[in-house]
Amino acid sequence: MTHSIEVSFSPALFPFRKTEGKQIIVVIDVLRFTTSLVAAFDSGVEAVIPVGSLEEARELKQHGYLVAAERDGLKLDFADFGNSATDFLNPGVKGKTIAYSTTNGTTAMVMAAESGTVVSAAFTNLIALSEWLKTQETNIVILCSGWKNLFSIEDTLCAGALATRLTEMHSHTTTCDSAIAAMDYWRLAKNNPEEYIAKASHHQRLVKLGVDPMLLYTLQTGISASIPVFENGRITDKRPRP
Amino acid sequence: MTHSIEVSFSPALFPFRKTEGKQIIVVIDVLRFTTSLVAAFDSGVEAVIPVGSLEEARELKQHGYLVAAERDGLKLDFADFGNSATDFLNPGVKGKTIAYSTTNGTTAMVMAAESGTVVSAAFTNLIALSEWLKTQETNIVILCSGWKNLFSIEDTLCAGALATRLTEMHSHTTTCDSAIAAMDYWRLAKNNPEEYIAKASHHQRLVKLGVDPMLLYTLQTGISASIPVFENGRITDKRPRP
Repeated sequence: MTHSIEVSFSPALFPFRKTEGKQIIVVIDVLRFTTSLVAAFDSGVEAVIPVGSLEEARELKQHGYLVAAERDGLKLDFADFGNSATDFLNPGVKGKTIAYSTTNGTTAMVMAAESGTVVSAAFTNLIALSEWLKTQETNIVILCSGWKNLFSIEDTLCAGALATRLTEMHSHTTTCDSAIAAMDYWRLAKNNPEEYIAKASHHQRLVKLGVDPMLLYTLQTGISASIPVFENGRITDKRPRP
Repeated sequence: MTHSIEVSFSPALFPFRKTEGKQIIVVIDVLRFTTSLVAAFDSGVEAVIPVGSLEEARELKQHGYLVAAERDGLKLDFADFGNSATDFLNPGVKGKTIAYSTTNGTTAMVMAAESGTVVSAAFTNLIALSEWLKTQETNIVILCSGWKNLFSIEDTLCAGALATRLTEMHSHTTTCDSAIAAMDYWRLAKNNPEEYIAKASHHQRLVKLGVDPMLLYTLQTGISASIPVFENGRITDKRPRP
């Protein structure tokens, strides 16, 4: 039996979704939270605690946690890490638990957790994640974190790539306009996604801030087997272990 | 001087737009309110009163107005007209004032009127409207009515067509992700838009209800000179008169 895919282009659209009952919510924040999360688990991070507010992040820092914190594209002073995958492509993070707060992605994830199982997607774990989603036999909602509730090109392209893969695997199907448009958009962009993402406002923002968007790394589809699942307040890596 | 274009894919995203100050809001509800509105003015309708609630529409009917009313794709029993352009491609409507209430488009228009001048766009008046917008020398926000706050393919394609035309005329430019994606989507679809709109959930809904979506008529780009402007509670046609 095939299950449904719905795409929400913004956290502000998520409450209007049509998917009912048991559902997996796939959160995407390609630039850069979900890409960094995948990198962190590849480096052996034990768990990530997504934190909505900076106050909570500061409090966890005082309780001895490592903290990653970003607002408007920049690392905050009190934090150990920013929001770049380079911060976590680092053997020093192995076995650590990190509290993590970002402008868009962590908030979207915390919100989504009220509605079902939450898993995190990036281009880097797209292949492994689609295999895992196939085994879950559940309707899915792909939630693009966007930028301050606005639509974002990079999250939409990743949503389109994931929905395309799931429909090609025949595990899922869709009648959702957002999913259909995201798949069409991915079809248009897939031969040169960096050209499309370079037009995105958040990419431009990072470049203007002098922050490396790490676009070539971000677009390495399927380099990771990580399955970051958020449950009981913690994100841990559910990749199948031998 | 060029002005900015921002696109909101849903009334639920409109409050998060970045455009500030004086702005024209271009409301799109291609299937079918804004297409029907253009047809009504081409037939000589004097004015249209957009009405959010059905209670208000019923009250105006009792006060002697002609009423168009649609919910979930179907004409309501008490109404004189439904929401199809065929209802207004009718010489009998000449000189009349019509109260009009639909599932999405009229509500979006009434909401938008709180933020600036509101004008209505469809494929049918796209050329005349873009010329008119050029003369206004103002930032614009294109508001897609969508379906019950969800993204819709048909409104997005019309938004993309309009934004493409305005940028090609060099009167407007954009850094908005939604506008850029809508223009890319239009570029993908413009050689066979009926194929893309046939995939849209609202098109499927109309077909299932046995309602003719009038797709070929809807997609006749630029057949009308109508400029439906909403001000002081009434929509009237501001097309330049000789």
